[in-house]
Amino acid sequence: MPDVIRVTVWNEFRHEKTNDKIRKIYPKGMHHAIASHLKKVPGMKVRTATLDEPEHGLTVKVLAATDVLTWWGHTAHGEVTDEVVERVHARVLDGMGLVVLHSGHFSRIFKRLTGTNCNLKWREIGEKQRLWVVDHAHPIAEGLGDYIEIPHCEMYGEPFGIPQPDELVFISWFAGGEVFRSGCTWHRGRGKVFYFQPGHETYPIYHQPEVLKVITNAVRWAATPRGAELVQGNVKPLEDVKPAE
Amino acid sequence: MPDVIRVTVWNEFRHEKTNDKIRKIYPKGMHHAIASHLKKVPGMKVRTATLDEPEHGLTVKVLAATDVLTWWGHTAHGEVTDEVVERVHARVLDGMGLVVLHSGHFSRIFKRLTGTNCNLKWREIGEKQRLWVVDHAHPIAEGLGDYIEIPHCEMYGEPFGIPQPDELVFISWFAGGEVFRSGCTWHRGRGKVFYFQPGHETYPIYHQPEVLKVITNAVRWAATPRGAELVQGNVKPLEDVKPAE
Amino acid sequence: MPDVIRVTVWNEFRHEKTNDKIRKIYPKGMHHAIASHLKKVPGMKVRTATLDEPEHGLTVKVLAATDVLTWWGHTAHGEVTDEVVERVHARVLDGMGLVVLHSGHFSRIFKRLTGTNCNLKWREIGEKQRLWVVDHAHPIAEGLGDYIEIPHCEMYGEPFGIPQPDELVFISWFAGGEVFRSGCTWHRGRGKVFYFQPGHETYPIYHQPEVLKVITNAVRWAATPRGAELVQGNVKPLEDVKPAE
Amino acid sequence: MPDVIRVTVWNEFRHEKTNDKIRKIYPKGMHHAIASHLKKVPGMKVRTATLDEPEHGLTVKVLAATDVLTWWGHTAHGEVTDEVVERVHARVLDGMGLVVLHSGHFSRIFKRLTGTNCNLKWREIGEKQRLWVVDHAHPIAEGLGDYIEIPHCEMYGEPFGIPQPDELVFISWFAGGEVFRSGCTWHRGRGKVFYFQPGHETYPIYHQPEVLKVITNAVRWAATPRGAELVQGNVKPLEDVKPAE
Repeated sequence: MPDVIRVTVWNEFRHEKTNDKIRKIYPKGMHHAIASHLKKVPGMKVRTATLDEPEHGLTVKVLAATDVLTWWGHTAHGEVTDEVVERVHARVLDGMGLVVLHSGHFSRIFKRLTGTNCNLKWREIGEKQRLWVVDHAHPIAEGLGDYIEIPHCEMYGEPFGIPQPDELVFISWFAGGEVFRSGCTWHRGRGKVFYFQPGHETYPIYHQPEVLKVITNAVRWAATPRGAELVQGNVKPLEDVKPAE
Repeated sequence: MPDVIRVTVWNEFRHEKTNDKIRKIYPKGMHHAIASHLKKVPGMKVRTATLDEPEHGLTVKVLAATDVLTWWGHTAHGEVTDEVVERVHARVLDGMGLVVLHSGHFSRIFKRLTGTNCNLKWREIGEKQRLWVVDHAHPIAEGLGDYIEIPHCEMYGEPFGIPQPDELVFISWFAGGEVFRSGCTWHRGRGKVFYFQPGHETYPIYHQPEVLKVITNAVRWAATPRGAELVQGNVKPLEDVKPAE
Repeated sequence: MPDVIRVTVWNEFRHEKTNDKIRKIYPKGMHHAIASHLKKVPGMKVRTATLDEPEHGLTVKVLAATDVLTWWGHTAHGEVTDEVVERVHARVLDGMGLVVLHSGHFSRIFKRLTGTNCNLKWREIGEKQRLWVVDHAHPIAEGLGDYIEIPHCEMYGEPFGIPQPDELVFISWFAGGEVFRSGCTWHRGRGKVFYFQPGHETYPIYHQPEVLKVITNAVRWAATPRGAELVQGNVKPLEDVKPAE
Repeated sequence: MPDVIRVTVWNEFRHEKTNDKIRKIYPKGMHHAIASHLKKVPGMKVRTATLDEPEHGLTVKVLAATDVLTWWGHTAHGEVTDEVVERVHARVLDGMGLVVLHSGHFSRIFKRLTGTNCNLKWREIGEKQRLWVVDHAHPIAEGLGDYIEIPHCEMYGEPFGIPQPDELVFISWFAGGEVFRSGCTWHRGRGKVFYFQPGHETYPIYHQPEVLKVITNAVRWAATPRGAELVQGNVKPLEDVKPAE
């Protein structure tokens, strides 16, 4: 783990500007709520970036100086440019961590990294959600108890169109009758990816301490030390080999 | 498993037309060698398709009538159209099996499904390869002994830029000093994907019985019964829920 | 898959003899309900075995002639002898499939194969259970729809003390608020293991068609063809090696 | 991760006392070589324990004060008592990390945790071994290059009788023609287990910096923060449920 983890908290930042109810909960945007929390964590250096900044705030320079990127998007996935999607994708393979939040499941970068359609069931009636920890040995579950309860949420239900996670950390129960794999890890190249379900914009979920705790843990887990360059491409043999005639 | 597995053997089919050495080994193309073998297997109905056919031979109708598609490409990955890549991708998520062979690791469809760059080491000096079975419980290893030896091969070496396989069936040893995850399975949606390393065009590898045995096993494994339609999108609750005020 | 799958349905067979309510549901025992169903499946040859038979009905001869063993136990796990546990364990590593049902999670053989304590939460108030299919590409989910509903069940809840499954096929939702990994696969040696949660003795769960469908699929999945003997122990080099001085 | 990781380096410590060649390489035992290295790592508090101490040096008190235990054994696996095996097993499920080295693959505790026989091929002619990193995102591979070369080793070959690893970090190539899954992780309860192949007693492998680097990384990875007690056993419903009549 690097001594200081450089985090970039990315947010689409549209709902908060156009919807009064949402603005009340997140006056400066969801990215501000998340970043404010992470800034208090020792060893983290945090910046934010949003869709409407030039290059969505994700320039080559910013990404090169980012160890872990968190991603929240919903209504404007299609406005993220090809160039930025490919740039983020390349940085993940190169070792940057990526924490994808809630409706980010339909972001172009998450679909690009999973190779699937990321479809799911959904329903928005403010029902109760309970996230059960199913892997208590996992660092992302550090400091949690038996489960996290979220009083009002948007339901996401199975089948979730993702590759089988390398590790499954949380499974959600919903009052309406569904379940959902809600905390999933994957390695991609030298980078690590975590998907975390909670976070609907109409509820104060990113003000809930346990949710912020999980995001903090996930950022730490996703921070990979800068490794050696991968050796790929055409190579000479390491042993004496008689070539075939 | 369906009663009859409908297999489409796809081949780029370029090397065999332009290179005398390769034409000698595969006079009618590698697809012909593979398809001829599969045609002798009870319960398989086999057709072939190649890059230079209209829509690369992979029309909507052909794919709808394909349970498992095998894929070999090398020199012309870039000529496969966006439309066909997306069509095959959608059919895999919908339940079609896909068996990706050798240099197909760099095909657009494999990269699309893995979400990674699929980079690797490689070397072409005709060295010896030995594929060790590491999961003897797996149906793709059925009927095999301890290992498969390939007298002359193209070397592919780690790190291989793929997601961790759901199941790892073969690991290769190469005379020149490298190793390679050479038989890898993944589920994607309702479809199954198998990557199998052997098959360089300049050696008679698709005439080798154990290699054909693995391809046969993989086709059987990848054939999924036509399941129920997935229920995704907006849904009503299955339980009585009091909506949040 | 062998042409004919030889199944042994094992049952502790105690509750059915001592409890009137349970006897009413399973007059000849749960093994009889399961075996009667499997006997109607083409390509299966089915026998039963129970705890109180000599060697629990699992003699060397019976196990040698068993491709897949199903296991239900609850009140008398401790009465299964060391010898039979080790015998079944060895047969699984040697290629026999094992389908562990419901309270079999605490059986000696399941703990022996998982290496864990298999602890869980439980509650017996007859609440509703819904098993969601989370891997629609898996042969064990063949022929199922979105979920299986069980009107009255015993609740099992996370954290479930098992190794991460190789493949997770079902996740259960319970009316009382819990979730549970309810369909889990593992390979052990040349054998395959499936754990399936439904089946409390006080409800007619093994009369429910979808539950029997899953058990049937699981038996098919778990049947491995008799493979080559594993080559292990001290071996000579396959290549010319200069020994170290 | 705890602020200070309390490591116990366990060694059978027999070969070093009875064999002159081995004593020359490890005059104070292999545990001393490993512990001396770990003592220099900031944030680690290291002690050793050996077979011939009372309770093999693994008293209740020592284990309670151990975050990560490393294990080397070979010639006297059978002398480790049932009581100590069960005590270590319980501590792993309770959150202690375990790093199993080389011939520790046949230790009672490793077999207990894997549920398998841990058989493998082996050969002792001092051939060359090369460990390839196959998961460059994994913290156990931190700081390594493309591969680790071990000039003279004991060969271990596939099939290795273990459960599929949760994560596969290293694959070995051997001059004699075999391969081996040589760096494997599993979660068991709240604890983490890492198996690492290098370490034959007749070669100075635990003096090799890259090997010590991996052991250091593995100890860090395996150290889990002391989590909340698991809630298991009989529980009341979290939701209002109408019991079945």
